[in-house]
Amino acid sequence: MSTGTCYIALLHHPVYNRRGDVVTTAVTNMDIHDISRAARSYGVARFYIVTPIEKQHAFVRRILRHWQRGHGAIANPSRKEAFDIVDIKGTLADVIEELSAKAERTVHVVATSAASRGRPTTYEALRMMIGKDGGAYLLVFGTGWGMAGDVFDRADYFLEPIEGPTGYNHLSVRSAVSIALDRLFGKRQ
Amino acid sequence: MSTGTCYIALLHHPVYNRRGDVVTTAVTNMDIHDISRAARSYGVARFYIVTPIEKQHAFVRRILRHWQRGHGAIANPSRKEAFDIVDIKGTLADVIEELSAKAERTVHVVATSAASRGRPTTYEALRMMIGKDGGAYLLVFGTGWGMAGDVFDRADYFLEPIEGPTGYNHLSVRSAVSIALDRLFGKRQ
Repeated sequence: MSTGTCYIALLHHPVYNRRGDVVTTAVTNMDIHDISRAARSYGVARFYIVTPIEKQHAFVRRILRHWQRGHGAIANPSRKEAFDIVDIKGTLADVIEELSAKAERTVHVVATSAASRGRPTTYEALRMMIGKDGGAYLLVFGTGWGMAGDVFDRADYFLEPIEGPTGYNHLSVRSAVSIALDRLFGKRQ
Repeated sequence: MSTGTCYIALLHHPVYNRRGDVVTTAVTNMDIHDISRAARSYGVARFYIVTPIEKQHAFVRRILRHWQRGHGAIANPSRKEAFDIVDIKGTLADVIEELSAKAERTVHVVATSAASRGRPTTYEALRMMIGKDGGAYLLVFGTGWGMAGDVFDRADYFLEPIEGPTGYNHLSVRSAVSIALDRLFGKRQ
């Protein structure tokens, strides 16, 4: 199975806050660590942190630098390896543009959500698609209370929500990304 | 499938540090949040934070109180629901003792690790066991650089390591717990 063409975008704008307003959330240090480690483990080619706020770009770059070239790189070489796939962009459109140019092929945008909407693509179906056509698949995850509607309008696929046996589904985005990657690329004995 | 009898213990002692010494790690705020949310989503009956350090018990209780009865309970009711399954114990033996007394049945201790050891139980096999016998299954996860050897000696099962298609496997414990629960109890369309 080809996994070299899966990408992740973690969206900080446009997303909802708890009241349903469209806002920009702050980048969280723990998101960078946990999601880059999961992405690196499951063969994701690039993990894009997406925020339009310039100061947040500087914040992310400072963290990356610490673990890639600073004291952290010596103390924890595996973290450096994970951070090597992290990048930061201003908008989802910037990510898609870069991927289209780099990958020289169609970029399939795959939206995710904790709530059901429309006719979702199953993990099984997406796994088979990625395995077959060798295209570039960009999985988009929202922060805050979920991605604003216009992100879904531009998505090619909407992935089935992650559900357990209870009615409760309030996973952290870190958990959701990890589970999604395991469903798509996990090895089972 | 019965999922009401799965329990989680997050061990802060005895675990290894990066040099291979047996140490006690500090309880992390993010572990409490992420793991309780995942545990609640997948129907885990109780999530035990295990540390012998009394001050850490007070720290955990203060966080729980904020989200269960303080300002957090009003601001975020779903977090309260997740925190309702969290408890704190001094040792793994204390957890097993409580479960044996409460559950009035055998407690099966299931150790986890990022590294292979001995003959592991597959997720598929454990999922079937939990579904069939209705026993109490305690999944034990280590912090730091993994659980010290004597935890494995007292375990009834050792669960297969979580692996992706790469040689890199440095997941956060938050990611590992989330993925393990999804493999055992996740619903797929």
